[in-house]
Amino acid sequence: MNKREKYTAGIDFGTLSARAVVADTADGTIYGEAVLEYPHAVITDNLPEGFALQDPNDYIEALKVVLRQAAEDAGISMSDIKGVGVDFTSCTLFPVDEDMTPLCFKEEFKDEPHAMVKLWKHNSTVSEAEEINAYAKSSGDEWLKYYGGKMTAEMGLPKILEVRNRAPRVYEAAFRFIEAGDYVSYLLTGSEVHSACFSDFKYAHSRNGFPKGEFYRPICEKLSDDIKYVSEPAGTVGSSGAELTGLSEGTAVSLSMIDCHASLPALNVTHAGDFLMVLGTSGCHMAHMEKLVPVKGICGCTYDAVMPRLATYEAGQSAVGDVFDWFVKNDVPGWCYDEAGKEGKNIHEWLSEKASVLTPGETGLVGVEWLLGNRSILSDSSRRGVMTGISIRTRPWEVYRAWLEAVAFGTKVIVDNYEENGIMIRQLKATGGISVKNPLFMQILADVLGKEIKVADVAQSAALGSAIYAASAAGVYEDVYKASDRMSCKEYITYTPVEESVRAYAKIYQRYRKLYGFFGNRDND
Amino acid sequence: MNKREKYTAGIDFGTLSARAVVADTADGTIYGEAVLEYPHAVITDNLPEGFALQDPNDYIEALKVVLRQAAEDAGISMSDIKGVGVDFTSCTLFPVDEDMTPLCFKEEFKDEPHAMVKLWKHNSTVSEAEEINAYAKSSGDEWLKYYGGKMTAEMGLPKILEVRNRAPRVYEAAFRFIEAGDYVSYLLTGSEVHSACFSDFKYAHSRNGFPKGEFYRPICEKLSDDIKYVSEPAGTVGSSGAELTGLSEGTAVSLSMIDCHASLPALNVTHAGDFLMVLGTSGCHMAHMEKLVPVKGICGCTYDAVMPRLATYEAGQSAVGDVFDWFVKNDVPGWCYDEAGKEGKNIHEWLSEKASVLTPGETGLVGVEWLLGNRSILSDSSRRGVMTGISIRTRPWEVYRAWLEAVAFGTKVIVDNYEENGIMIRQLKATGGISVKNPLFMQILADVLGKEIKVADVAQSAALGSAIYAASAAGVYEDVYKASDRMSCKEYITYTPVEESVRAYAKIYQRYRKLYGFFGNRDND
Repeated sequence: MNKREKYTAGIDFGTLSARAVVADTADGTIYGEAVLEYPHAVITDNLPEGFALQDPNDYIEALKVVLRQAAEDAGISMSDIKGVGVDFTSCTLFPVDEDMTPLCFKEEFKDEPHAMVKLWKHNSTVSEAEEINAYAKSSGDEWLKYYGGKMTAEMGLPKILEVRNRAPRVYEAAFRFIEAGDYVSYLLTGSEVHSACFSDFKYAHSRNGFPKGEFYRPICEKLSDDIKYVSEPAGTVGSSGAELTGLSEGTAVSLSMIDCHASLPALNVTHAGDFLMVLGTSGCHMAHMEKLVPVKGICGCTYDAVMPRLATYEAGQSAVGDVFDWFVKNDVPGWCYDEAGKEGKNIHEWLSEKASVLTPGETGLVGVEWLLGNRSILSDSSRRGVMTGISIRTRPWEVYRAWLEAVAFGTKVIVDNYEENGIMIRQLKATGGISVKNPLFMQILADVLGKEIKVADVAQSAALGSAIYAASAAGVYEDVYKASDRMSCKEYITYTPVEESVRAYAKIYQRYRKLYGFFGNRDND
Repeated sequence: MNKREKYTAGIDFGTLSARAVVADTADGTIYGEAVLEYPHAVITDNLPEGFALQDPNDYIEALKVVLRQAAEDAGISMSDIKGVGVDFTSCTLFPVDEDMTPLCFKEEFKDEPHAMVKLWKHNSTVSEAEEINAYAKSSGDEWLKYYGGKMTAEMGLPKILEVRNRAPRVYEAAFRFIEAGDYVSYLLTGSEVHSACFSDFKYAHSRNGFPKGEFYRPICEKLSDDIKYVSEPAGTVGSSGAELTGLSEGTAVSLSMIDCHASLPALNVTHAGDFLMVLGTSGCHMAHMEKLVPVKGICGCTYDAVMPRLATYEAGQSAVGDVFDWFVKNDVPGWCYDEAGKEGKNIHEWLSEKASVLTPGETGLVGVEWLLGNRSILSDSSRRGVMTGISIRTRPWEVYRAWLEAVAFGTKVIVDNYEENGIMIRQLKATGGISVKNPLFMQILADVLGKEIKVADVAQSAALGSAIYAASAAGVYEDVYKASDRMSCKEYITYTPVEESVRAYAKIYQRYRKLYGFFGNRDND
């Protein structure tokens, strides 16, 4: 292997594990990888419904292990790593004291759930979100428009309000509420640093600061106002960061990013009109435009926080792979598994093969995919999934295909909504487990959208993206655009829409929209 | 066993078999039973979609076997049987020549599907039904009102028109189109005899005869106008009937009845305000009233054709047990079967046990049961099933319960429709496989209807009903009312509505009605 002199590293802190890559700054080739499954994973036992906690020790443990292992895997020395970038799930936050020590590390709070990390999917905060939305609506607060008209329970302010309401002692003791991604920046650099990617997407922050006024004071007073935007680095590795990770002191550290956003430069989705779908258990749909405009029903948008001088928009589907997974676990009879086993296929492959010979509309089934509620465009977690057109002759692979189609229709609603709001989409790319593992879904998605989709042939796109941000922070490139042009993924699998299917799905989509309208309306509950 | 001197026999010709009982005329005790599975069953191989044929030889074979075996089982001589009654699936018809020989017995037609018996569920006749309905509607034909406003594809006139359109040679050769139930009367008595139960429920016949005019002539010209009503017997067993069956010549033969109607006297559902549900693969919902009035969306109604001097109404659900059966075959994962097996339960028992601890509405699931279309009240076979409220946490037994509830809601629409049309329902009884095998469904049905339901503890209610008609024809009783009072089933399992569930289901039913309205409307397809 003809290795280059300069490498950067990226660490992707996911829901269950942290993964590091060491990438060549010349062309993005990944030379080394490492993963650590979090010892405490997601903590839900004996907790109220909606709770999903983590232990910050897992992040520290990951920092000790994954960079050293990735460098070893690459066969390079730690000192060869010229920059490090981090991406993290979000909104994932916890309270710290003035020394940036997590409150849950303290004896007095060690059994207090509200002192722990509230993971992105922690959503026992519905009433807090409603309180905030009601206030913002009645006050005509500007920030609301940039969150699709509604802050969801998973965002930062409801999570902080929950601590204040339900564990005032923790709230009082907190010096700061901090995003886990920013906490990692602190561990690396030794300084408090906050990325606009978190604050502007998840905390109603903008260039004008956090929301102001008496109502917001007790929610926002423990958030730092010192926010950095994407062109600035987080800093450099300090002495304790060096000791922790094995990196050299002075190694450049880029600003932490939200995990799905880190995939944008990894796939060179860096220009207005570019669109990226991160398709895993859920779906994240990101687009760029030159300017920031309010868009109904999206999750959030920021300017200058993901790509310099660009507005980045994020919408989402609460369940993508989760729908297919629920289906095969709860709805597929044993004889299908038996047949699949005989043919040496996994159940998704087997169902896909049977489903792939069906033509669009052949089964008469049309579903609505809201098994975890609707994130975009309705932002209503109380919505539920629907399957229509069920006949006595309906077979399991027909329903499987109908769920794939339902998710694709849901994506089309999001794409249409972007375009109706002036965010035109010219080039579509996809990454994430489902994009690689479910080719039938990807073909259906291309047919439903009527657009070509390029799926990146890279397993660790978020970690690679973080390494790209790091290359910019390290000054290897002038900015992240140039870093992305050189280091982003070059290999794609292309799904081209089939004209006949596009026409057929255009009709079925009208039916889906009718169901969307009917079941999206709470009056019909 | 203290056996009585007088017995009558009933033969229930079902879809796959014929069953005979020998009953004590004093109290209806069944002393002997026998069954013959039809050698040819239902013929569908290599036939167009919707075809469901039978071979009349199977009926002849049954007549040779089942009465002799039932008498033997009862330990009585054939001459002890004082009357015989027959019930048959309907509309089940075929063409015969002047000697009452089925055309399919003739060499020239032996390979002609249209010369065979078209079984009740033969429904390749949709376009013929539409043609007839369109004509009747445009002409304002009176009969249409008594068929819920629409003749379905399974009825007699569309089936005859299909022969005329697609096999004119068969049509020409036919002397008569005859119901299979009337054909059995012919085989027993040696005379052509036609029961109003068939003609008035399935052929648009009334006291005014068959529909008149040029349009109907080629459809009805080969139907006999000589129709008998329920107070009249069919006749007595003739010499060839005696030879065929082993019955004594001169044994009374009652008029043949539609199978589900024969259950009415067997459960003593013989008065205005009485309601009977026959719950098997499909559901049949029958009620009586003093007079004949048009009722929207029902299957049909007759006067004096089932009970003397009473109007009998029939509505139906195309799929009841079929829904549950489809679900366990196509939608229940292997691990549920494994658990059920470990506990020594069949899958319905196991799912019912898990589902029975759920409270109404707890799962948020609401279904619409139209897996085989909607028979009543929409009479639209193009409708399809729906399941709403699906969540990532939805488990198989929750969906199972939701399907049970959906079918019960569908029944409530039928009951409400009767009552809205002035046919008040005071006492509900049920028979058929599902009523005995699925106690959870029966409890849900009682809760949804808010009414007590009595389930007959008798396996062969149709055959017993035929034996009751036979006791009237034999003069053992003055009429079928008196025969039913003495011979009908005395043992019932009672399902009493639980007030709390009744209240909960009243709310969920509103949601079902909303779905019913939305998905029942073809404009929403």
